[in-house]
Amino acid sequence: MTETAPKPPPLHPDVVPLSFLLGTWVGHGEGDYPTVASFHYDEQFEVSHVGKAFLTWSQRTWGTEDRRPLHAETGYLRPGPPGHVELVLAHPNGIVELSEGTVSGKVLSLQSRLVGRTSTAKEVTALTRRLEVDGDELRYSLAMAAVGRAQADHLRATLQRKTEAAAP
Amino acid sequence: MTETAPKPPPLHPDVVPLSFLLGTWVGHGEGDYPTVASFHYDEQFEVSHVGKAFLTWSQRTWGTEDRRPLHAETGYLRPGPPGHVELVLAHPNGIVELSEGTVSGKVLSLQSRLVGRTSTAKEVTALTRRLEVDGDELRYSLAMAAVGRAQADHLRATLQRKTEAAAP
Repeated sequence: MTETAPKPPPLHPDVVPLSFLLGTWVGHGEGDYPTVASFHYDEQFEVSHVGKAFLTWSQRTWGTEDRRPLHAETGYLRPGPPGHVELVLAHPNGIVELSEGTVSGKVLSLQSRLVGRTSTAKEVTALTRRLEVDGDELRYSLAMAAVGRAQADHLRATLQRKTEAAAP
Repeated sequence: MTETAPKPPPLHPDVVPLSFLLGTWVGHGEGDYPTVASFHYDEQFEVSHVGKAFLTWSQRTWGTEDRRPLHAETGYLRPGPPGHVELVLAHPNGIVELSEGTVSGKVLSLQSRLVGRTSTAKEVTALTRRLEVDGDELRYSLAMAAVGRAQADHLRATLQRKTEAAAP
């Protein structure tokens, strides 16, 4: 936050059911897919807010051994009707993701409704996400349909909350 | 950048033709549309990189008078074939944008190829963007087709580069 950005105001009441996600999460994950060798990664995942009826969502990963930047994604999580959530994300590999699903307690379940790809993007056709928070631990898994393959497990990670969530 | 994120490496050669956009840009804009009263806004627009073949793109605006957060968008700008660019963005109003276009000198011209909307998003169907950099000044305009209207001018702004661009 620079001096040109005002201090964040109080949490918008519509995002209180999602406030368990707020914070900076760091940890490790592993990935595989039928077409790639399994790999390990470090992750930083930040969920924040600006006082409006959405949360910001920003994720980056690095190779655990070589520290090379791997994936990233950035976008917004929106409350829908009670119990429903919407996620809009851009990925640097040329993909936009529009997912919808449910929030139940501290579990988020999302299924892509649209995956858009630029002319030079890899062919990803579907993404399924599950996130669960238990205290200051976040676990997630992501399944993907890509490059002509049926949906298969792709990523799973366990992250720890580094900073306290903003008080709702 | 936190201590868990490595320092950014040198600029990837594929994004050198886009490096004129790098930096933090701040300034003012005005907006209108057939369905809304005209309005003024302050903006902060950040373009950065992580050493890979894309730039990060992050924009926020605030009401000039009331400092209320207005729009935001976040995503990635990717070089395509020589002279072509791809932009993938998420907007907190529930929209994902996939735009493609050209870069010529320090002028970027982009037309949406896909605008995806969540169940509760406003009906936006097309976006046309033009950005031009002249030294440390960036001017852009954005036209939009939305809520059943044909495309019309929506936003125009002039921003100044606050920090030097990273040396290519």
